[in-house]
Amino acid sequence: MNRAEVTEQIIEAKIRKGIRWADVADELGASKEWVTTACLGQMTLSAGQAEKIAGIFDLPRTAVAVLQTPPVRGQSEAAMASDPLIYRLREIVAVYGPTIKELIHEDFGDGIMSAIDFRLTLNRREDPKGDRVEIVLNGKYLPYPGA
Amino acid sequence: MNRAEVTEQIIEAKIRKGIRWADVADELGASKEWVTTACLGQMTLSAGQAEKIAGIFDLPRTAVAVLQTPPVRGQSEAAMASDPLIYRLREIVAVYGPTIKELIHEDFGDGIMSAIDFRLTLNRREDPKGDRVEIVLNGKYLPYPGA
Amino acid sequence: MNRAEVTEQIIEAKIRKGIRWADVADELGASKEWVTTACLGQMTLSAGQAEKIAGIFDLPRTAVAVLQTPPVRGQSEAAMASDPLIYRLREIVAVYGPTIKELIHEDFGDGIMSAIDFRLTLNRREDPKGDRVEIVLNGKYLPYPGA
Amino acid sequence: MNRAEVTEQIIEAKIRKGIRWADVADELGASKEWVTTACLGQMTLSAGQAEKIAGIFDLPRTAVAVLQTPPVRGQSEAAMASDPLIYRLREIVAVYGPTIKELIHEDFGDGIMSAIDFRLTLNRREDPKGDRVEIVLNGKYLPYPGA
Amino acid sequence: MNRAEVTEQIIEAKIRKGIRWADVADELGASKEWVTTACLGQMTLSAGQAEKIAGIFDLPRTAVAVLQTPPVRGQSEAAMASDPLIYRLREIVAVYGPTIKELIHEDFGDGIMSAIDFRLTLNRREDPKGDRVEIVLNGKYLPYPGA
Amino acid sequence: MNRAEVTEQIIEAKIRKGIRWADVADELGASKEWVTTACLGQMTLSAGQAEKIAGIFDLPRTAVAVLQTPPVRGQSEAAMASDPLIYRLREIVAVYGPTIKELIHEDFGDGIMSAIDFRLTLNRREDPKGDRVEIVLNGKYLPYPGA
Amino acid sequence: MNRAEVTEQIIEAKIRKGIRWADVADELGASKEWVTTACLGQMTLSAGQAEKIAGIFDLPRTAVAVLQTPPVRGQSEAAMASDPLIYRLREIVAVYGPTIKELIHEDFGDGIMSAIDFRLTLNRREDPKGDRVEIVLNGKYLPYPGA
Amino acid sequence: MNRAEVTEQIIEAKIRKGIRWADVADELGASKEWVTTACLGQMTLSAGQAEKIAGIFDLPRTAVAVLQTPPVRGQSEAAMASDPLIYRLREIVAVYGPTIKELIHEDFGDGIMSAIDFRLTLNRREDPKGDRVEIVLNGKYLPYPGA
Amino acid sequence: MNRAEVTEQIIEAKIRKGIRWADVADELGASKEWVTTACLGQMTLSAGQAEKIAGIFDLPRTAVAVLQTPPVRGQSEAAMASDPLIYRLREIVAVYGPTIKELIHEDFGDGIMSAIDFRLTLNRREDPKGDRVEIVLNGKYLPYPGA
Amino acid sequence: MNRAEVTEQIIEAKIRKGIRWADVADELGASKEWVTTACLGQMTLSAGQAEKIAGIFDLPRTAVAVLQTPPVRGQSEAAMASDPLIYRLREIVAVYGPTIKELIHEDFGDGIMSAIDFRLTLNRREDPKGDRVEIVLNGKYLPYPGA
Repeated sequence: MNRAEVTEQIIEAKIRKGIRWADVADELGASKEWVTTACLGQMTLSAGQAEKIAGIFDLPRTAVAVLQTPPVRGQSEAAMASDPLIYRLREIVAVYGPTIKELIHEDFGDGIMSAIDFRLTLNRREDPKGDRVEIVLNGKYLPYPGA
Repeated sequence: MNRAEVTEQIIEAKIRKGIRWADVADELGASKEWVTTACLGQMTLSAGQAEKIAGIFDLPRTAVAVLQTPPVRGQSEAAMASDPLIYRLREIVAVYGPTIKELIHEDFGDGIMSAIDFRLTLNRREDPKGDRVEIVLNGKYLPYPGA
Repeated sequence: MNRAEVTEQIIEAKIRKGIRWADVADELGASKEWVTTACLGQMTLSAGQAEKIAGIFDLPRTAVAVLQTPPVRGQSEAAMASDPLIYRLREIVAVYGPTIKELIHEDFGDGIMSAIDFRLTLNRREDPKGDRVEIVLNGKYLPYPGA
Repeated sequence: MNRAEVTEQIIEAKIRKGIRWADVADELGASKEWVTTACLGQMTLSAGQAEKIAGIFDLPRTAVAVLQTPPVRGQSEAAMASDPLIYRLREIVAVYGPTIKELIHEDFGDGIMSAIDFRLTLNRREDPKGDRVEIVLNGKYLPYPGA
Repeated sequence: MNRAEVTEQIIEAKIRKGIRWADVADELGASKEWVTTACLGQMTLSAGQAEKIAGIFDLPRTAVAVLQTPPVRGQSEAAMASDPLIYRLREIVAVYGPTIKELIHEDFGDGIMSAIDFRLTLNRREDPKGDRVEIVLNGKYLPYPGA
Repeated sequence: MNRAEVTEQIIEAKIRKGIRWADVADELGASKEWVTTACLGQMTLSAGQAEKIAGIFDLPRTAVAVLQTPPVRGQSEAAMASDPLIYRLREIVAVYGPTIKELIHEDFGDGIMSAIDFRLTLNRREDPKGDRVEIVLNGKYLPYPGA
Repeated sequence: MNRAEVTEQIIEAKIRKGIRWADVADELGASKEWVTTACLGQMTLSAGQAEKIAGIFDLPRTAVAVLQTPPVRGQSEAAMASDPLIYRLREIVAVYGPTIKELIHEDFGDGIMSAIDFRLTLNRREDPKGDRVEIVLNGKYLPYPGA
Repeated sequence: MNRAEVTEQIIEAKIRKGIRWADVADELGASKEWVTTACLGQMTLSAGQAEKIAGIFDLPRTAVAVLQTPPVRGQSEAAMASDPLIYRLREIVAVYGPTIKELIHEDFGDGIMSAIDFRLTLNRREDPKGDRVEIVLNGKYLPYPGA
Repeated sequence: MNRAEVTEQIIEAKIRKGIRWADVADELGASKEWVTTACLGQMTLSAGQAEKIAGIFDLPRTAVAVLQTPPVRGQSEAAMASDPLIYRLREIVAVYGPTIKELIHEDFGDGIMSAIDFRLTLNRREDPKGDRVEIVLNGKYLPYPGA
Repeated sequence: MNRAEVTEQIIEAKIRKGIRWADVADELGASKEWVTTACLGQMTLSAGQAEKIAGIFDLPRTAVAVLQTPPVRGQSEAAMASDPLIYRLREIVAVYGPTIKELIHEDFGDGIMSAIDFRLTLNRREDPKGDRVEIVLNGKYLPYPGA
């Protein structure tokens, strides 16, 4: 049993039992963004978190150990590249990525926004012309070394 | 003279003359994010904006017409895919993309965040452990049609 | 059981039982285009629709929940890229895509035709020199934001 | 001077002189869809049409011969694959392509819609919730041979 | 049971039972080229043909329905691209394809050879310096539309 | 000046001067298929042939030596892969390639059809339902070695 | 049971039983290079050879028929492209391939070395500075046809 | 002026002046294989060799320094991958590569044949059934380290 | 049972039993880098090492023979290319690879660092600003042959 | 003039004038690794460093501004992927990458080695069996965030 199989079992149980990510987050006392990312196989859980997740989604004992092991990340998204929602995120990088590079260099200098020391937040913004999705990407600035 | 050549001339003039995007934005009375995106060849300018940009960056007359024509978008990013700053954005989509998909579906239903009716904001967040880059993606929610 | 497996079961039952998409559409009171798209795993069904589909195609209970979950879209077409019928659609985009881009920009401005707020219709047009397929793509125009 | 260079000169002249495709179509007495496709390098022109196009866009003499030669088609689209408007067309093929295949087979039998004996029409449909783009694809049905 | 699995069962039975394609063609009263193509999953069979094929290759009942359904074509060849015999065909297209394009345009005009309204014939030509394979490709000429 | 540049000059002169491949073939006393293939940069010419070709297409002196040098073959086809006429040839390999492999093995044994000891012929076949293109591929059978 | 599965069973039995290719070659009375190539699924065996191989590697009855059928060649190497030993062979083609092309053309004329009428030999060459691998590739020269 | 441009000038001069690689090799007192490889941009020359090569091929002064600089290797082969002669070498690796791997491991142990400490030899072998090309690859065996 | 399956069983047992690589290395009396590489399927074990590994990870008897057979290397990393830790290594090659090439050529001459006669060491370097990973790559210099 | 053109001029001047990277490093008072990386277009220089580099390599005035602008990184390596020295680095990542991932996770936890807060060192290690290249990669450990 590897991490991808644990993720698959979590998703199947979630659909079958009608569980919401927001409720899982409440039970773990963590943000819905981190908990969802972890349940989708992208974060390492502590022993206590792994036990709780196994309970919520009826996972077998071995899953508890697997959930505490650093995963191989980023594999499932590649298989979802044709999905319109995922593609819009890639398109935003294609259209606005060079802008982001220019503005980080102008405001911070020669460096990057970390994707490891990083937090994701997703909010619903009400709008009379149709509600909006707001995604906040927040990462530490890391400068390149000088000579 | 096509749009890619206009973009190249803008970038060369910017470096040569030491111009800042923030100052260009002030002169146009628009956000630094929109102005930078437009100068990098991803937005269509009005006649007045095109004249101002041509003045700031010493562009030839034909560039004024080119800047008012809808561009072919997203081409330069492919050539920048190996750049670490750009790649971090792609990696965020790879690691967190499925999370974003799950949370939009849970909160809004079956639909997507628009990449057209969309605004980008980039801020510097001071932090004693090292300042942070905050990128806000804000797009209209578009639902898939029912039967 | 994931959505791809449900789709596979629907296709197998359709062939085995000799069911027609047009008849499924009648039973659901929806267009044949939407119903076929949904049965092929590209649309989310309501509870009532999912129950009916499960009945028509002898699907197990878990399929009813799966059919009500937003799917990962666009995956099966990639595997069909070598199919001559599918390829002709891609070729039409290759040969006529730039034309469509020019004409939308000329008539509407700088924006796109939505693929989400979108309807497909397929008709048979009788013709003495051989009947013709007519495919109507109808999507909302979405403009890019100005400064 | 090859066809791609003729296309580039046409596009540059169009922007510089502020010409509209609809007006070019009127002058040639042909549909705007066919004329735009031809000007973008995807159709062969008659001698008379080539002369008119050369006049409208100030093309050199050699272009008149080039415009009457069957072109290598579909090359520019690859360079535009990242453009959001073009991509939406590809996405429609990805999401609705298998549906189109099923419905053609159900209604016509085992065959395809021709992309050669084919007509494109693009209309603006007014709508109080926002105008819509309507693209009509009309191609002859071609059956596969029996034994 | 999908078409690819039916094809696999046909190939396994053919090897196990030592059946020749020419004999299958005789029993169906059709050309060896069409019958082989159909057995390899690329053509739709009539009810009578499907029954005969199922008898010859010991196929289960469900295969009879599957054989009468329009297949997704062209998938198995991609997996055989490294096979020297298949590759020689691709190489012929690479070396002689532009020649074929030039000669069709010179002799017929701006159009293509149909791959749907198409017949394949394969003959053995005796030759004292070593026998030769003769492959005849015969397809209807389809012209592109004029203005 | 390399072979690709010579090919480009030949094609430009052919269009400009309205030359036909069949006439070039007559002047060289060779088949139109071989001559076209050679002019498109895929065959090595003798000294006499190179002189004649240089005369017909107004090529510079250095081209005469280049035409007598074995070329790097198959490069231009990649750039033409999106062209519908070229693609139909690829599609024929995709749909009928496995059939050709089966029938060669059944009739000749384990070997291939040579693409080097090979002749191409292209004919127009009149047909009341629309004329047809006939392409004959004729190559020596080469067996794999036994133990 | 297809050829790839027979190959897999041969490799597993070879490891489990500690068989050497050189010994298999002796038993068949053939070169170790041909026998190994055949056992790896790249050559067709005679009835007698297939029986012997099935005996040596404990293969089931159906494998005997499969081994006598022309295989689809070259597929397993693609999956081994990252293996350093295999990659060195590819690198030799990359670095020395153009040299081989030049020298064959200079010494033989415009043609190729056959990969079908071809023999492989592998020897160990003792050397005080470290033994060397010697691989001899021997193929018939095939000339391209003249006009 | 980089190494690729020097190579291009060498090839052009060779064709224009009718020089043979074997003669260049004689003048340098080295094997024709090494000299051809070096002239095609894959080896570093000594000062004396560079001077001689510049003399033979009429190269400018800067080329003499460039020829003495370690090159970036293997780039031209990618552009030649479609050439039938080059492809046959790749195909030999595809069909016989796994055999070579097995036989090296059986005879030497777990290691590779070096592509750096390596010599190429190409000979013509006369044969009444048609002369043959013999290519000898000779590289040092390098073992993987043990624990 | 092939090597990839043995690797999978080792990883599963390691997680299930909470084994550390450092402890496995101690038991084998070898470096943690070599032992981990071997357990991940990239090195050949001696009979004694294979027995010990089978004991530690509860592997079946056939695994002992498999572990002593030279593996196909480098396959699992390709599947991990999206993992941020693995990608950083690739990025270091992209950003610093040309530097490494220049400095090896300047200091050693025209040759490479061997990846076969090669040792990996990984250390933790304490640092008040955050501990650092130190990876030492140590390979024999191999020169290209002169004329 | 963009950064890639500045890099090209630096390399040409270096070869023409016989400059060594170690000497450039001495003049800038920085490590040879950083200076070479910067000269190859991968680091941003200070005003003083840019002036010195322009002097050493005879660069035009505009290059001084370009050298102080954050570059797009990692582009040249793609063009060098076939070079054996560069490939060996990739192969080391392919063979040893999973080992590095396991050992970092075992020793540090779930995180990565930074490729931004990173130092490269390259040394020559004398060895009686042949000198060795030692490459030290030293990057800050960055942990993934917990819940």
